[in-house]
Amino acid sequence: MNYPNKKVKSNNNFIEYGNRGMTLESDINSSNKYYLDNDIAIIYKKPTPIRVVKVNYNNRINTKITEAYYEVPSTTDYNGIYKGKYIDFEAKETKSKTSFSLNNIHEHQIRHLISIERHGGISFLIIRFVMIGKTYLLFTKDFESFINNNDRKSIPLSYIEDNGYLIKEGYNPILNYLDIVDKMGDVYGKI
Amino acid sequence: MNYPNKKVKSNNNFIEYGNRGMTLESDINSSNKYYLDNDIAIIYKKPTPIRVVKVNYNNRINTKITEAYYEVPSTTDYNGIYKGKYIDFEAKETKSKTSFSLNNIHEHQIRHLISIERHGGISFLIIRFVMIGKTYLLFTKDFESFINNNDRKSIPLSYIEDNGYLIKEGYNPILNYLDIVDKMGDVYGKI
Repeated sequence: MNYPNKKVKSNNNFIEYGNRGMTLESDINSSNKYYLDNDIAIIYKKPTPIRVVKVNYNNRINTKITEAYYEVPSTTDYNGIYKGKYIDFEAKETKSKTSFSLNNIHEHQIRHLISIERHGGISFLIIRFVMIGKTYLLFTKDFESFINNNDRKSIPLSYIEDNGYLIKEGYNPILNYLDIVDKMGDVYGKI
Repeated sequence: MNYPNKKVKSNNNFIEYGNRGMTLESDINSSNKYYLDNDIAIIYKKPTPIRVVKVNYNNRINTKITEAYYEVPSTTDYNGIYKGKYIDFEAKETKSKTSFSLNNIHEHQIRHLISIERHGGISFLIIRFVMIGKTYLLFTKDFESFINNNDRKSIPLSYIEDNGYLIKEGYNPILNYLDIVDKMGDVYGKI
């Protein structure tokens, strides 16, 4: 019943996404560059934490790291400022067509997002369903409410459709996620 | 005229600093941990950006990076949230007893700090004069005003004494820099 061709035709986002072959990370980085260049917001991806074990100083131009390991990030991937407000979020892709597994996000990252919310910041998840070609923004309070009221290990897509917001995709910015923060900010009394 | 012993005796901070053998970075990280543990503020140091060139997947437990290079950071080292406000700063040590050289800080980092200020965040420099054993907080607006009104390549200590704020050192937090943000925040209409 799953005809790839039909699927591609019925979903422009999917075609576009496939053509661009871009990852969620590069789409967000590009959108953040648009926000920065247009003086709309200052939001950056944090560098990946790496534990350096050995370096080689022989090369005079550039210190060469010869042994290092990836570390688990303490917080989320993205933070910055928009309209005077502290913004903080984590972005994840899933290949599932039905749900977002909570295994995708570390428990201390969830605690961090909740903490930011409590301190008056705006925090959320950006979740891309790669196979469906749709990207959603789910505010932490709705994410938290799901976790508190469910024993499930994954959030159904239907919950995200009902409680999250579909992010409009375009040419520039590719993902206009601040549009949702704008519209919903006053609901939270924060923008 | 420069008797090291006399100097050490006359300055408790210096002795303490020497005894602890701590760097500014570890003092700030420890203070941020205090703020975090006591739910006062959520401020982290960003990981150092590293460009990974080669990795070795042979080791099943942990991916080993075998070639990588340090990159110039896009922004400042520290950011986070305090009392609902976006906080952003860079921290630098100097061995000079008379001035802080502007070579210590990248031009794009200066632009970033000014930008944050303009977007309604609170941004500043933390400058430690290692030989004097004193650490100052200089808000971006005072830093900017110095740059705009001077051709000098360094900020004299006297300017920092007059326009910055001496950070109280203690046991925990070691550097209570948010105390200054607290006291001065209302001057800027931001806290």
